[in-house]
Amino acid sequence: MFMNSRFLVTSFLINALFGQTPEMAKVIYQKALSSNEAYQTLNELTMNVGHRISGSENFTKAMAWGVATMKAKGLVNVRTEKVMSPRWVRGKESIQLISPRPMNLTMLGLGMSVGTPQEGLTGEVVIVDDFDHLEKLGEQVRGKIVLFDVPFVTYDRSVTYRSSGPSRAAQYGAIACLIRSAGSSNSNTPHTGTLSYDSRWPKIPAAALSLEHAILLRRMSESNQKIIIKLNMEAKQLSDVEEGNVIGEIIGSKNPKEIIVLSGHLDSWDVGQGAQDDGAGCIIALEAASLLNQMKIVPERTIRVVLFANEENGVAGGRSYRERHESELNNHIALLESDSGNGRITGFTLDLPGRPPRQRGVNPYGDKSLKGDPSLIERFQSLAKFQEISGAKAFTLGMSGVDVSPMVEAGAVGIGASHNMSKYFDVHHTEADTFDKIIKADLQHNVGSVAILAYTLSFSSTRLQ
Amino acid sequence: MFMNSRFLVTSFLINALFGQTPEMAKVIYQKALSSNEAYQTLNELTMNVGHRISGSENFTKAMAWGVATMKAKGLVNVRTEKVMSPRWVRGKESIQLISPRPMNLTMLGLGMSVGTPQEGLTGEVVIVDDFDHLEKLGEQVRGKIVLFDVPFVTYDRSVTYRSSGPSRAAQYGAIACLIRSAGSSNSNTPHTGTLSYDSRWPKIPAAALSLEHAILLRRMSESNQKIIIKLNMEAKQLSDVEEGNVIGEIIGSKNPKEIIVLSGHLDSWDVGQGAQDDGAGCIIALEAASLLNQMKIVPERTIRVVLFANEENGVAGGRSYRERHESELNNHIALLESDSGNGRITGFTLDLPGRPPRQRGVNPYGDKSLKGDPSLIERFQSLAKFQEISGAKAFTLGMSGVDVSPMVEAGAVGIGASHNMSKYFDVHHTEADTFDKIIKADLQHNVGSVAILAYTLSFSSTRLQ
Repeated sequence: MFMNSRFLVTSFLINALFGQTPEMAKVIYQKALSSNEAYQTLNELTMNVGHRISGSENFTKAMAWGVATMKAKGLVNVRTEKVMSPRWVRGKESIQLISPRPMNLTMLGLGMSVGTPQEGLTGEVVIVDDFDHLEKLGEQVRGKIVLFDVPFVTYDRSVTYRSSGPSRAAQYGAIACLIRSAGSSNSNTPHTGTLSYDSRWPKIPAAALSLEHAILLRRMSESNQKIIIKLNMEAKQLSDVEEGNVIGEIIGSKNPKEIIVLSGHLDSWDVGQGAQDDGAGCIIALEAASLLNQMKIVPERTIRVVLFANEENGVAGGRSYRERHESELNNHIALLESDSGNGRITGFTLDLPGRPPRQRGVNPYGDKSLKGDPSLIERFQSLAKFQEISGAKAFTLGMSGVDVSPMVEAGAVGIGASHNMSKYFDVHHTEADTFDKIIKADLQHNVGSVAILAYTLSFSSTRLQ
Repeated sequence: MFMNSRFLVTSFLINALFGQTPEMAKVIYQKALSSNEAYQTLNELTMNVGHRISGSENFTKAMAWGVATMKAKGLVNVRTEKVMSPRWVRGKESIQLISPRPMNLTMLGLGMSVGTPQEGLTGEVVIVDDFDHLEKLGEQVRGKIVLFDVPFVTYDRSVTYRSSGPSRAAQYGAIACLIRSAGSSNSNTPHTGTLSYDSRWPKIPAAALSLEHAILLRRMSESNQKIIIKLNMEAKQLSDVEEGNVIGEIIGSKNPKEIIVLSGHLDSWDVGQGAQDDGAGCIIALEAASLLNQMKIVPERTIRVVLFANEENGVAGGRSYRERHESELNNHIALLESDSGNGRITGFTLDLPGRPPRQRGVNPYGDKSLKGDPSLIERFQSLAKFQEISGAKAFTLGMSGVDVSPMVEAGAVGIGASHNMSKYFDVHHTEADTFDKIIKADLQHNVGSVAILAYTLSFSSTRLQ
């Protein structure tokens, strides 16, 4: 690392004192802990833009905000790189319980769902425990509305029903699909998120019920009451729109063509404020770079901040990045993503090329142990020793992030920030994902630990592959 | 206590074994812990009726359910006693943020609020910290919408703003009043509850914002953005309707004219399922009596279960009871109410005649210490010794319940069930007050400890005054 010319004396002193050592990490981390900027920047994004689904006016505002903020923070080569994003629009939606008694049920349509006919869609609800149960019921669900009432244990488990449930139900002739919200909120706050239609079966409308109302229907069913609902959803898919990944850089002093990507995704679902998912990740990436910049630390390699478009319903941002940068992917030392909220970062995952393509709910690393590979251990230890001060020392093999996955699949190294996620699914993809739940001290820690990692990765001597 | 004739032998044995002793309390409590009935009964009420505000069709269903359930459980003299209840209807309601950016805010109109003109009401929002701040602002709020953004510390503190805030704001010319929800939920789940207009000032429409959206407006205000909203509320007050307190009894064997009342209130707000507020209290009162009945324990005094109408917005049920039973109030040994959710009962409050009239947020007992009054200590100890098995041994002076307060003010003794309320204000008066949060073991404990208290109070020898 070198300091720029205006700070030659300071640079000399700092290098003399610390060099490329864990002591320098300490200075970086302490600076992060004393800075108000990350908190303030996330406040601005969530307050002035709010939620920002692909294709929305708010996402356009978010891009403009990203460009302006990167420039204000002194990043260079600030630009957007074209992404063609899907444009799914929720419209009005409701579920009325008709039998056994009239009431409105609390719901959120699933992302990418088709709508109902304008007059709505009325049918009997069948409570289904899981896919095995569906298989047993088979043709009994024909003409009915399937409710996958799967208790939230892990996100991976629940998300399978959100993702594949609608087509699995359609396979047996269901006319619509409901799921119990794939989250741990128990305040009648439903969860949304994308579904994935299987082209072999008809596309049926799908929505998540709040925990409370999924349980209510189950109770009614268990007391042998016939459940009839009317579902109205205006949801529709419009033409793709041109958006962009928002990018800014600190140019490396020694190996400017070697690139460290720090990233999050700028889009969110169309509820809440996208504070944890993934405003926090964007701000962590952006502020980690900005922090080094403010400290006049010039990395040997280029640090590139990427705020991806369209993670939530398409990954068009990640795929566009791969297409555009395919020829220089071998110059990417690593692509780090933070996309698991603002819980404290406890360590990082190393996501190595050659693993199978990303698939929801499947750990492509299986039981592969670090112990068997001395060179892996060495790489991890060289990164971990700089995190002594932050405590984010747990380096493991694992998935990195949805947006950087296309690059990992094309041969680059991904790194995921491992956040404490104990509160994440209370708010994830709900109206409750708002700035007020951002813990400032955790955000400062997260910026600090990612800044240390960026600093470490930018050494010419650091090799991951 | 006596067992009825069909169980003379058992009666003889039980009395011989236990008599009127704490050992009998143990048998009662263990029966409560092994019974599924309270949980099942509360499931029925919340599932088949749901929320049940005064004047609604659902409240009529709840009364019919109460009468049928009391009869099925073997209570006698089952009846409803006329109450004229107010009929406030919410209608459609919404708040749109217009400036600085368009979005819908999550809100619930306050109970008894007037509505807005049909075209809605648009105005600038002024953030007000507390009443002192309002006094300082004075005429600056004229023509504007006041938001009392008071962090939830205690319910007593927050409820003052819900109750008096609208008229306090109207006094200075505000055209509408918002409050931060008076609860601890942080899942964008707003709270409702009654306001109380001061007849000296114009009635202005009033609503609670979710925690998240109150904080959002504050953040906008702190960054010097002008906040304009449009409030639409169809809320209105219709003519009073005839309803009733639902009453059933176990007739005392020795002093049938001496009465122990066990009570809760059957009405709820028009959101959620009224599970904690106050379905739980109703079921605790009803099942405690039913438990003694099932055990063929015939009390010496009459145990009267009262499910009051219209606690939430008028206390018409409590006042009607006082009017109707004024002449026999001196035969009421005590009136117990459970109205603080289904957290575990840790003890009971004794609410003695002669205290000042009930007032929200004011402890009429002040610092009055038990230590100064040996006869009080003795009374409490005689009750507490029977709660050894349940652990609900904390007997203190304190408010009893809103519905029994009119009788306390007229000279009777009130008893309040002291529940653990640590989770209560997460759900109280919100859509999240649903059966799924009822902990069965706590409900069983609560029925058991109230059944023990009823058993104790029904001894001819028990005196509280």
